[in-house]
Formats: sequence, structure tokens, C-alpha cells
Amino acid sequence: MAEPLFDRLCLLGIGLIGSSIARVARVRGDLARTVVAHAKTPATLARVRELSIADVVEPDAAKAVQGADCVIFCVPVGAYAEVMAQVAPHLKPGAIVTDVGSTKMSVLRDLGPLMPAGCHLVPAHPMAGTEYSGPDAGFPELFQGRYTIITPVAGTDPEAVEKVRELWRRCGSMIETLDPATHDKVVAIVSHLPHLLAFTIVSTADDLAEETKEAVLKFAASGFRDFTRIAASDPTMWRDVFLNNREALLEMLARFTEDSHALGRAVRWGQAEFIEDRIRRGRKIRQGLIERKQA
Amino acid sequence: MAEPLFDRLCLLGIGLIGSSIARVARVRGDLARTVVAHAKTPATLARVRELSIADVVEPDAAKAVQGADCVIFCVPVGAYAEVMAQVAPHLKPGAIVTDVGSTKMSVLRDLGPLMPAGCHLVPAHPMAGTEYSGPDAGFPELFQGRYTIITPVAGTDPEAVEKVRELWRRCGSMIETLDPATHDKVVAIVSHLPHLLAFTIVSTADDLAEETKEAVLKFAASGFRDFTRIAASDPTMWRDVFLNNREALLEMLARFTEDSHALGRAVRWGQAEFIEDRIRRGRKIRQGLIERKQA
Repeated sequence: MAEPLFDRLCLLGIGLIGSSIARVARVRGDLARTVVAHAKTPATLARVRELSIADVVEPDAAKAVQGADCVIFCVPVGAYAEVMAQVAPHLKPGAIVTDVGSTKMSVLRDLGPLMPAGCHLVPAHPMAGTEYSGPDAGFPELFQGRYTIITPVAGTDPEAVEKVRELWRRCGSMIETLDPATHDKVVAIVSHLPHLLAFTIVSTADDLAEETKEAVLKFAASGFRDFTRIAASDPTMWRDVFLNNREALLEMLARFTEDSHALGRAVRWGQAEFIEDRIRRGRKIRQGLIERKQA
Repeated sequence: MAEPLFDRLCLLGIGLIGSSIARVARVRGDLARTVVAHAKTPATLARVRELSIADVVEPDAAKAVQGADCVIFCVPVGAYAEVMAQVAPHLKPGAIVTDVGSTKMSVLRDLGPLMPAGCHLVPAHPMAGTEYSGPDAGFPELFQGRYTIITPVAGTDPEAVEKVRELWRRCGSMIETLDPATHDKVVAIVSHLPHLLAFTIVSTADDLAEETKEAVLKFAASGFRDFTRIAASDPTMWRDVFLNNREALLEMLARFTEDSHALGRAVRWGQAEFIEDRIRRGRKIRQGLIERKQA
């Protein structure tokens, strides 16, 4: 077994992602000598104790970070500012502060100003997840073969960045680096907009007349069924993601809306070639994913 | 083995659905004594011969239907009128004419007027498919556990309807009956709109700046990846589906667009409760599917 990467690793929040990291630490033994888990609700704390996936379970965030050489924010991105205000004065000198949030400009905005001198902020985003949430939903293989995007700002201590990269390598991830603004645009189209569309279409179906709605549930063919799977994701997390990637998401929604209107117009006016061209582009992109082994 | 349901079964078109029916007939032996396959292109005809999934392979549609007591339209719905014009004068007296198309009002419009007196039109829609197409894509288990919706019009010979029901039962389907207009509305929201959205979002991504597009392909997280799978479907088939379910599809697109604007507006103005409510409805619908074992 390799030398543990950290002495004391603190997970602020222990839902799907946090509890998966904790499980990797348990299975491998080389992420940290001690794993500290913090959660807000007594129910989650009790469940984490039952699952026995952390060495220390700590209800007080300020106490949880004490002595930790690495602190990972695993709470919904909307809670970062509040949690940071609680923990910042208690961070160990030289500690690495990182996160797993789906929006990265917001991390700089919410954590950056409160970072103590000498501590290192290295935002990260493991692109892995399921539609389930909570400490029971995690599993140690979650990150295997998936990308983790690191978005360090210029001037960050290279050693701290390398430690975060190594953390994710040990979790089984492939590592990429992007600037935070590009990250936010890419995930807006790749992940946030698809979720917004999925949430919307099930709402639209839910508003149909009762008789039609019953039939919708009965005949949910593969198209709609896939959307409902996406749409079953955690409400708090996704609310926060949308609100914290507002500009990029609204830009992608605007582009998408223009394009869907163009396709709808082609359907109305019977423009067969335009419709076929759109569908062909779908196949081409899919082929690109298959070639990249991302399909 | 049960008595074959038909003496001579003619499949007009032998792509994913047609070739799956042919394979069920081969495996079970009790769909028909003789299976006739018709296709338009020499390449498809040659491939069907190689695959040996039909007893007779016939390039001429008019000859293909001769003597058949059941004829199934398995071509894209946009081709029904043209094919019907070729075959109608050659249908055997008393023959059952059915189909597998995703739109049902269009079947009445395109086949109804040309039906010879004494023949029986029983439209059907097996709600099964994959993103693959062509005679190689079919497999005999495709319809197992999936619904097939029958949309007979009032006055249709009950014996003919029952034979089509039994055909799909033998294919492994669960059978439901709907009126054609309700069918078209339900599939518009359950299947056609999700496909339209999927085709659109991959087009939108395809129009992004080259650098962003590369990143999109690289980081296709589960949300976007699921959309590309749907978007990889057969262009001709889906073009025809959209054009032949125009009114219902445009109505559902309009409803969806209103709802996506409302959600986008909530993101812009930070209306957290509205956003959460939309996401919660997604979970509720998903739960409904799970309870109905359609998830």
C-alpha cells in the first residue's frame, strides 16, 4: 500500500459523492490516515456511524476541519459560502481546500475571499453520479474511468494541485484541467441543460389531463423513461447547480430554444431535409462519443 | 406448437421491427406457415437472404402481398400511401392489413381510403425499439414485456382485431387498445418530443465553438450521453414520424417550451422554490414509473 496521501481528510457533507470518497478511503487505505465526516442533520450523522464509512463523525463543521490537511466541500454548491464562513477560521495552516461541485466559478466566488493566507484552494469536479442521493447511495467504484476536472487558478501552489490530482487518481478518475469559465460552459451543455430539459418534460407530462397522464405512465417508452431517470436527481443539489451556473445555463438554454423552434417550424412546414439534417447530426455526435469511448 | 396464426404473412419493409417479427416467426414457428419479406433496396434484399430470416424474399411489393392473409406495413410511415397504392389491388380478399408505425391517425388517412371491401385494417404500434436500424438490428426478444397498442376503428371485424392481438401476444407483447387520436397525443409526449429534444440538443452542441465542442465530446456526462443515444435513431423513420404526427407534436412542443421558459425565468430571478418544485415533480413521475414497473 502507498503512503497515505493525507494525514487527516475532512469531508464536509457525506451524500452520494462524499460517501463514495469515504468508501474509496476505506477500501484503499491510502487516501488518509483518518477520515472525518461532517453532516448537518442528525439522521445523516447517525446513518454514517451505522455504515461505519468514516473514522470520525462530527456534527460541528468548525471542529470537523480542525487539524485536517485536506478539506473537501461535498455539500450542495449553494451552501458553500455559509459553510466556509463557519470553517475558515479553523482551517489548519497550509491545508488544501477542494470541492466536488458541478459549478466552478461559484467556488472561486464563495470560497476564495475567505481562504486564509497559506491555505490552498484547488476546485475540482468529478464527473460522476447517479440519480440517487444520501450516504447510502455512495459506492467506491463511482469515479472509476470517469473524468475529474480540476480548475486551479493561476498562482496556486503546484504541490497542492498535484495532491488533488493524486487524490482523484487514487479514486480511479482520469484527470483534466480547465479554466473555471470554460468548465462552467461545457457542463452547462453536457449536464445542466439536459437535466433542465428532463425536469421540464416530466413537469409538462404531469400537467396533462388525468387520462392522458395515466397513459403516459403506462406507455413510457425508452425516450421518456430515460428522461425520468435523469429527472429523479436530488432537488437541492440541482436547484443549487442551476442558480450557481446561471449565465452559462441560460445562454445554452437560449441557443437550445432557438434550435428547437427551428426544428418545430420545419415540422410545421414539412421541411423534410432540414429535419433529416438535424437527426443526422445527432448520429454524428453519437459516433464521436463512441470513438472516444464515452458512449 | 400452436397452430400457425396465419398461412402467409407478408412483411412490407424489413428493418429493425420487421426483421424482429421475422425472427419471432422463425423461432416460434407459429406465426405463419410462410413468411414473405419485401424490401425496396437490392442491398437489403440480399442481406435478408443471407440472414435467412424469411421464407420468400420479394422485391416487388405487389407480388409480395399476393395470397397473404396478413400484411404488415413495416416501412417508415411516410411511405405508407405510396406502398398502399402499389399493393391495394393485389390484396387477397379478407386479408388483414396492419402496421407497426409510431403514428396512427396517419395510417387511417393513408391506408383507409384504399382498403378493398372485405379486407380488414387493424393499426398497431409495438412500443419497442433501439437506436439501431436495418435487418441486422432485429432480434426476437425485442417485443417481450413491451406494450403494443392497437387502435382499431369502430366497426372493424372483431375476429381480425383478435388475430392482430394474438400476433403480438405471440411476440411477447402486452396488448392495449386506444383510439388513434389519444394514441398520437400520448406518444407525442412519451416518445416523439423526447426524440425532438434529443436531436436538438446534440445539434446545439454541434454548433458550439470548436474548442468547446471538443470538451463536450470528452466530458459527455450521463445526462448528455443518454440524449445522444436517443439522437442516434434512424433519420428517415423519425423524419416521417414528426411529419405524420405534426399537430400533436407541435402542441406538446409548445407546452414544453412554455414550461422550459418558466424554469429558465426562475433560474434568472433566483426563484429557488419554483425550481425545487419542478425537480420534485420529476421524482414523483419517476416513482410512478417504478411502481408500474416501467422504469
